[in-house]
Amino acid sequence: MEFYFYSLIAGVIALLFSFGFAYSVLRKPEGNKKMQEVSQAIKLGAKGYLSRQLKVIAAFVVVLAIAFVFLPNGVDISIAFVVGAVTAYLTAYLGMNVAVRANIRTTKSAEDGVHKAFSTAVHGGAVTGFAAVGFSLIGVSLLLLYLGTSNVLLLIGFGFGASIVSLFARVGGGIYTKAADVGADLVGKTELNLPEDDPRNPAVIADLVGDNVGDCAGMAADVYESYSVTIVAALLIAVGSAAAGAATSLLAYPMYVLSIGVASSIIAMLFTRTRKQNMSVALYKGIGSAVIIAALLDLALTYFTGMPIGYFAAVLAGLVLTIALFWITDYFTGSISKPVIKIATAAKGGAGTDVIMGLSVGLKSTWPSVLAVVLAIFVSYESAGLYGIGIAAVGMLSLTATILTIDSFGPITDNAGGIAEMGGAPASVRSATDKLDALGNTTKATTKGFAIGGAALSATALFVAFAQAVGITSLDALNPLITIGIFIGALLPFLFSSFLMEAVGHAANLMVDEVRRQVKTIKGMLTGKAKPDYAKAVDIATVNAIKALIVPELIAILVPIAVGLVLGKAALGGLLVGMIPASFVLALFMANAGAAMDNAKKYIESGKFGGKGSDTHKAAVVGDTLGDPLKDTAGPALNSMIKVVSTISILLAPVFVAFALL
Amino acid sequence: MEFYFYSLIAGVIALLFSFGFAYSVLRKPEGNKKMQEVSQAIKLGAKGYLSRQLKVIAAFVVVLAIAFVFLPNGVDISIAFVVGAVTAYLTAYLGMNVAVRANIRTTKSAEDGVHKAFSTAVHGGAVTGFAAVGFSLIGVSLLLLYLGTSNVLLLIGFGFGASIVSLFARVGGGIYTKAADVGADLVGKTELNLPEDDPRNPAVIADLVGDNVGDCAGMAADVYESYSVTIVAALLIAVGSAAAGAATSLLAYPMYVLSIGVASSIIAMLFTRTRKQNMSVALYKGIGSAVIIAALLDLALTYFTGMPIGYFAAVLAGLVLTIALFWITDYFTGSISKPVIKIATAAKGGAGTDVIMGLSVGLKSTWPSVLAVVLAIFVSYESAGLYGIGIAAVGMLSLTATILTIDSFGPITDNAGGIAEMGGAPASVRSATDKLDALGNTTKATTKGFAIGGAALSATALFVAFAQAVGITSLDALNPLITIGIFIGALLPFLFSSFLMEAVGHAANLMVDEVRRQVKTIKGMLTGKAKPDYAKAVDIATVNAIKALIVPELIAILVPIAVGLVLGKAALGGLLVGMIPASFVLALFMANAGAAMDNAKKYIESGKFGGKGSDTHKAAVVGDTLGDPLKDTAGPALNSMIKVVSTISILLAPVFVAFALL
Repeated sequence: MEFYFYSLIAGVIALLFSFGFAYSVLRKPEGNKKMQEVSQAIKLGAKGYLSRQLKVIAAFVVVLAIAFVFLPNGVDISIAFVVGAVTAYLTAYLGMNVAVRANIRTTKSAEDGVHKAFSTAVHGGAVTGFAAVGFSLIGVSLLLLYLGTSNVLLLIGFGFGASIVSLFARVGGGIYTKAADVGADLVGKTELNLPEDDPRNPAVIADLVGDNVGDCAGMAADVYESYSVTIVAALLIAVGSAAAGAATSLLAYPMYVLSIGVASSIIAMLFTRTRKQNMSVALYKGIGSAVIIAALLDLALTYFTGMPIGYFAAVLAGLVLTIALFWITDYFTGSISKPVIKIATAAKGGAGTDVIMGLSVGLKSTWPSVLAVVLAIFVSYESAGLYGIGIAAVGMLSLTATILTIDSFGPITDNAGGIAEMGGAPASVRSATDKLDALGNTTKATTKGFAIGGAALSATALFVAFAQAVGITSLDALNPLITIGIFIGALLPFLFSSFLMEAVGHAANLMVDEVRRQVKTIKGMLTGKAKPDYAKAVDIATVNAIKALIVPELIAILVPIAVGLVLGKAALGGLLVGMIPASFVLALFMANAGAAMDNAKKYIESGKFGGKGSDTHKAAVVGDTLGDPLKDTAGPALNSMIKVVSTISILLAPVFVAFALL
Repeated sequence: MEFYFYSLIAGVIALLFSFGFAYSVLRKPEGNKKMQEVSQAIKLGAKGYLSRQLKVIAAFVVVLAIAFVFLPNGVDISIAFVVGAVTAYLTAYLGMNVAVRANIRTTKSAEDGVHKAFSTAVHGGAVTGFAAVGFSLIGVSLLLLYLGTSNVLLLIGFGFGASIVSLFARVGGGIYTKAADVGADLVGKTELNLPEDDPRNPAVIADLVGDNVGDCAGMAADVYESYSVTIVAALLIAVGSAAAGAATSLLAYPMYVLSIGVASSIIAMLFTRTRKQNMSVALYKGIGSAVIIAALLDLALTYFTGMPIGYFAAVLAGLVLTIALFWITDYFTGSISKPVIKIATAAKGGAGTDVIMGLSVGLKSTWPSVLAVVLAIFVSYESAGLYGIGIAAVGMLSLTATILTIDSFGPITDNAGGIAEMGGAPASVRSATDKLDALGNTTKATTKGFAIGGAALSATALFVAFAQAVGITSLDALNPLITIGIFIGALLPFLFSSFLMEAVGHAANLMVDEVRRQVKTIKGMLTGKAKPDYAKAVDIATVNAIKALIVPELIAILVPIAVGLVLGKAALGGLLVGMIPASFVLALFMANAGAAMDNAKKYIESGKFGGKGSDTHKAAVVGDTLGDPLKDTAGPALNSMIKVVSTISILLAPVFVAFALL
């Protein structure tokens, strides 16, 4: 049996598990009528946004699919591209649709105790986690069957399809969620002194919708992309590195590792449960057990297939990197970590020193993650050459189902808290959802470290694949054209994220205006007698997120094409060389600065330095506001950007080789 | 006559002009007794800081000078190193000493009208501008005489000496000035509602001292370093590019261009005056005329020395880049520019949206500057090969005297305003110094664009020189060791600046505590009946700036050494490749974000959106506070960092070639 049948089976199993988890969540009871109203409003808002976003995505995908037909082997590339785009979208869509149903059920389960609610939220997250892995493995395996193993290069279309959807989902969702969040907080918390998720705040539904379209759909698409693109990169490198005829085993190995990842993630779900123990321990036990099981199985795989032990070392480097990134992110952004307390302390001097210290922590947090990735590259290369870098990335991403489960847990619990608050749930339920929400915040931050590191490693693998695709065996950084490419590459993440920050700032301001308007014009709103116009706020977030999508998308697509056409393939190689590390470090900075400032605010809210409502707290809220678009919009979107740029560079490599101005 | 005698003469002339300007400033009358008291306090504080900083610098310089003796040709390198360090320090010291005397005389001149004051401040700035150029040309020329033109490589010691002093001056001065500024503003403006430079604020003297040790001494050392290092890089590339025997004319050409720069700057001083016309027009006329005169003379030089016209094209690219960077920086940070108004508008939503938009503007501001530098590299390389990149940098830096004059104008006028305020000068004088201060703020921001761009271009030239020094003819970015170097290089500016931001945040907080303490304990201070304890605030800034110096210095010195020793010369090349663009873009982002947020605050203070004291203004003050260390500490210090890393890499190249672990 061809190797891709095994991965096909693994993919189908993953998908079945996803459906199983979905079933187990959906059969749970929903909450009372008031809660259902809230949940319904969130569902509608999220659907409304996704359907508008879909139109824009579809337009891009159709245009690109037609354009790709003109490439050599264009029809196959187009097919692969559409498969990639559709499966990515399905993952995001499915994950989000379950999440908006899991939230209310999590709230309801909390009536029977926090551990029941925990399990509901974890299962809700697992739907996305296993769907992502399932769709991707099925997609790649079927394409391998269709294209044949001698046309692996055409798979890049699949990777690019996943990338482009991810970019839209990350950028659009990121802008939406933070425009709503910042807008809701600025007036609600600061001016009106309303608590989080208070139903009297007109922007509150938009905020809850944002969690789903940003943290859930956006993150799902992002990780789906990392996973898919990593597979493609590893297969491309396998072809590029193999001596004639030896290719098949090099192709099979990463697919086996990924199949093992599915099995390990399934087994690990058994450990991700809790009765009496600490819930965060349960989550970390889940990840830890997945890593250990995967490592053992990978070792066995390497042994029984007779592959060099160096391959296993490379895969292990990827697995260890996963743990290291979790640990590092937790150190810098954990709720009572030293750096977070440092920021909270700085807030005593005012908002100015809070944000200065917050950015400082973000800047400093970059070094251990970069060093960890660098070590993984070093070890995997020394163990298995360039091929090692590809399979290290595969090893790391093989546990995607587990990581994404834990990540999607975040927005579900966040929403559950909101529904509890708005649905007037009893104090015991709220206390349970609050605990889950706090945990979800931490897991959201730590999985971001994984997503960013994974993107960096898979982009590095893509870079190797690019060089092989365009036939560059040496990329001379002393050639000024390449130097120019490197400069432009380093510039790209800064330029790209400027649009995202601007869009959030702009839309949040509109949201603030709208909330202030409603406060003035809707009588009785603040006393709870009249209902705010939630739909208007949802509309503002939707319209502005969609509007702001286009320019950054075009930058990510057109800049590499322009450089490739005008300055040639070597300069484009330079662009990748400049872009990957700069984006990686910038994304770490942004994500960690934001998460640390968020937790510094929460630290003060827990009663330290004067607690909620004190001047110190107000100062920390400003830091949190700045941190929001850093950690949830600009930072994560860079992941998608580097992969879009890398995949389109490979995809159009034949064009750049055949034709270049210089 | 050997070519370096001409540059020696140019250097001596520049130094004579510097002394002449100093004389013309010092013979002007000082202000009244109260002003003299203030001026005296600033002088003492600045001297106290510099003497403590000198001890740390001296320790580093002595240790390094001894260590360098063990290199091949070690004694000569050590001598060159000490010459570089001493001349850099002299420039900073002289410039600052005149600045702390020019400030009070500017205030006094303002009694006779704003144009008199303008001329005093410009002359004060010119002392630094011409001293920098003079010391550097004399130093290099004498070393060429001593070492002989066949040992140009040893000049790198000179460059590193200048770099190391610049790093100290930038880092220490930057932390000092912003700790004091932020501390003074946070309590003074926000809590106590005191105006800027109010004598009742205990941190006000420290703030004024900071302008001198940071913006004046720090900037002088930074630009001195750029100038010196650029000369060295150009000469190194000349040697590396020359066919046997042809080296002398390639060595002579850049030295002639620099001599022409001195002449052009002197002539341009005639245009930098004003009677009725707008003062900013006068300054820009100064720069414009310097560029035009230099271009014409360089054209003549190229023609009469029979050098290829392509050399002139490269020099011209550098000159045009100077203008372009001014214009770009002004567009993004000018006092009524569109991006600045955007930030001010965002402040209506609160401090959170203000800083979000501020960072967004900073991020976006990077692209035109990067593109301008990239174009200059492209044109100069196409015109004259790698040598072209060296002389383009020389062309750009040849007008250093003019640029530094305009830049040093800033802290002098800032201080003049402070002295007027604290010395109780009449309203007409204050209005004059306010106008000068506003202009000085703009010139400080725009010259920063020049300093950052100049650093990027000269670092690129240094990178070429490094490759030639270690005998790398091709630096393969596909080699994973080099990839690792690139990642570490991109990381470096983030890590480095994190320490600076942290130091400012920390010291500012201590300053806030101290000011609050004095408010509580010194009775009658706020009513003006009792004097605050200025010395205590000065002491806090001094001690904390010195303390925070060491770690970032060590990072800049030790990381490249470690990479060179452990991973080898190619990985070190990778480090430079990753570091230069990332630092460049990050520095632009930081400097422009800071300047734009500063001016957004000033825009509101001019009466827009509610004016001073409104909520919008308070929000903008938070942005300004964050912007302060971005624009005056972390951003500029990156300039020095990339040059220290580049020069030490070249300096120790023989060691890395002979010995590397991998």
